[in-house]
Amino acid sequence: MNDEWKMCSPALSRRAVLAGLAALPAASATLGPAAAQAGPLPSWNDGPAKQAIFDFVRATIDRTSPSYVPTEERIAAFDQDGTLWVEHPLYTQFVFCLDRVPAVVAQKPALKNTEPFKTVLSGNREAIAKLSVQDFEKIGAATLTGMTVEQFSAEVRTWLERARHPRWNRPYTDLVYQPMIEVLQYLRNNAYRTYIVTGGGQDFVRVYADKVYGVPPEQVVGTALATKFGHGKDGRPELIKEPKLLFVDDHGGKPEGINLVIGRRPFAAFGNSTGDRDMLEWTAAGSGARLEMLVLHDDAAREYAYGPAAGLPDTKVGTFTQALYDQAMKSGWTVISMKNDWKRIFAFE
Amino acid sequence: MNDEWKMCSPALSRRAVLAGLAALPAASATLGPAAAQAGPLPSWNDGPAKQAIFDFVRATIDRTSPSYVPTEERIAAFDQDGTLWVEHPLYTQFVFCLDRVPAVVAQKPALKNTEPFKTVLSGNREAIAKLSVQDFEKIGAATLTGMTVEQFSAEVRTWLERARHPRWNRPYTDLVYQPMIEVLQYLRNNAYRTYIVTGGGQDFVRVYADKVYGVPPEQVVGTALATKFGHGKDGRPELIKEPKLLFVDDHGGKPEGINLVIGRRPFAAFGNSTGDRDMLEWTAAGSGARLEMLVLHDDAAREYAYGPAAGLPDTKVGTFTQALYDQAMKSGWTVISMKNDWKRIFAFE
Repeated sequence: MNDEWKMCSPALSRRAVLAGLAALPAASATLGPAAAQAGPLPSWNDGPAKQAIFDFVRATIDRTSPSYVPTEERIAAFDQDGTLWVEHPLYTQFVFCLDRVPAVVAQKPALKNTEPFKTVLSGNREAIAKLSVQDFEKIGAATLTGMTVEQFSAEVRTWLERARHPRWNRPYTDLVYQPMIEVLQYLRNNAYRTYIVTGGGQDFVRVYADKVYGVPPEQVVGTALATKFGHGKDGRPELIKEPKLLFVDDHGGKPEGINLVIGRRPFAAFGNSTGDRDMLEWTAAGSGARLEMLVLHDDAAREYAYGPAAGLPDTKVGTFTQALYDQAMKSGWTVISMKNDWKRIFAFE
Repeated sequence: MNDEWKMCSPALSRRAVLAGLAALPAASATLGPAAAQAGPLPSWNDGPAKQAIFDFVRATIDRTSPSYVPTEERIAAFDQDGTLWVEHPLYTQFVFCLDRVPAVVAQKPALKNTEPFKTVLSGNREAIAKLSVQDFEKIGAATLTGMTVEQFSAEVRTWLERARHPRWNRPYTDLVYQPMIEVLQYLRNNAYRTYIVTGGGQDFVRVYADKVYGVPPEQVVGTALATKFGHGKDGRPELIKEPKLLFVDDHGGKPEGINLVIGRRPFAAFGNSTGDRDMLEWTAAGSGARLEMLVLHDDAAREYAYGPAAGLPDTKVGTFTQALYDQAMKSGWTVISMKNDWKRIFAFE
């Protein structure tokens, strides 16, 4: 961890601001929308999405409400890619894996002429984009395993310091959605524990989740490879990352992962794609007041536009189908329009 | 949950007492052993074990100490069977599984004449004691799966209300070690989060861990069967328990499970058998002050005596080998003698 990351990251500056917000009395949340406008969720435009968040919090923290939720049960679950930060043109962790290929090939030169590594090394973006799921699994197994959990965290940290998103030329950790950071903080100010429930790698996200989102390691649920306990050459105990998938935290795997790691049903769930549907259904099936929200990427100017719901262009990364949109409307879930509901998208704007 | 469980459980009365203890200022822990004797750990005799706990806490909560630990990193891990409650003559969850066999056979009569169910139904204790690990896996698969997670919790709750330990004729949840309850509370009073890390079933332990130990569901790490997300006949989303082992939280599986669910290395770890060795090693390998403790069952009069460490009788349930004892001595881990270190063992004494 160098000083730049530690001291100068905009994400960290944002956290300092949020720490200030956290010091505000939580009771401000009960003062109603008029007072709340000046306080929480400043990057949200007034509208049904912002109101749904306020209504949910009020209904669950008011002791006289029939939907009152004891503090120990206040759990909110957030998908990450496309819900808390940018996922286009490619999931950030995929970029990390691709960037690690040269280092892996340097250690195992035989891979140089073996697919899919040969294609990755070619740098041909079109060819890389056409790689199959199986190819990506091979790349993941080669780039994410065979090292201790500490070595892996260090690799991720180093990469995050150096890597830049191709569109904004900024660190990936800058590309988090400011309105969602405010929701995380607003819920925590009202005694909700905020969990990330991501299809991405649990240990990848844990490296920066505390700094960037204020979410500590034990509140990150994600796709997990197995680790193997053993002893290194110096006899010290170590956990080695294995090329063995323990569970995939996507689709049905999201409620399954929540049950495994948390053991409680969330009262609020946020997502943006079909991979989040089962988590939202599981949340909605609980009793009392529940909140289910889906981020719709409908802002090509400030971020990206993709669906294919609502006539937006189709995509393979973070697909939001029309069927999911229809289910949301039918079920009383709230669709967040990035274009209309968010005053600004990034803190650096 | 009926009123008897909810209102009259001795475990609950104990919790009420502990809630009172929790209200004491945490600063009392820094007043040193003399003052502490009147406060925390009243069921412990003075001696190196009690002192090791005080020394560890003082070293890690004192901001001027080189071993100071920030509150968010204060994690303590406790094995359950044989460390927090009685595990002889048989692990409690095994008794639960055996007791469920008649209900399972009533639903699937074909099992009646199939082993190992036939032996279990015979009630022949000697024959049951000779069942193999594979037999127990079959019994576990039949008795712990094929229902929703809520149905399973309800089954466990009902069983816990009715079942009685053969020696004390009391509910199993009465048979928790009062000195360890005090350690859990003392650590929590000093901002440690207490986790259970058990070879037993995660969802079994979660049913009563909050009531009995003050450990909430999200702080229980245990052996886990997979669940499967789907929809019931009424179309409602549900999680069904599957006969598929996700991971075994014992031996190397304990540090692996800690890494998966918590993502932080504990500063203190408590166990009582060879299945806990890897968790203690993993804990000890961290920097700064760490605490590793092993409960030795050397009190046949008040509980049970088994090892085979220290010349105690051998056992298949909770084996504490001489090799583990020697490793503890060599590594500076503390062995707790139930006979010498504990004034009383159960709250009901």
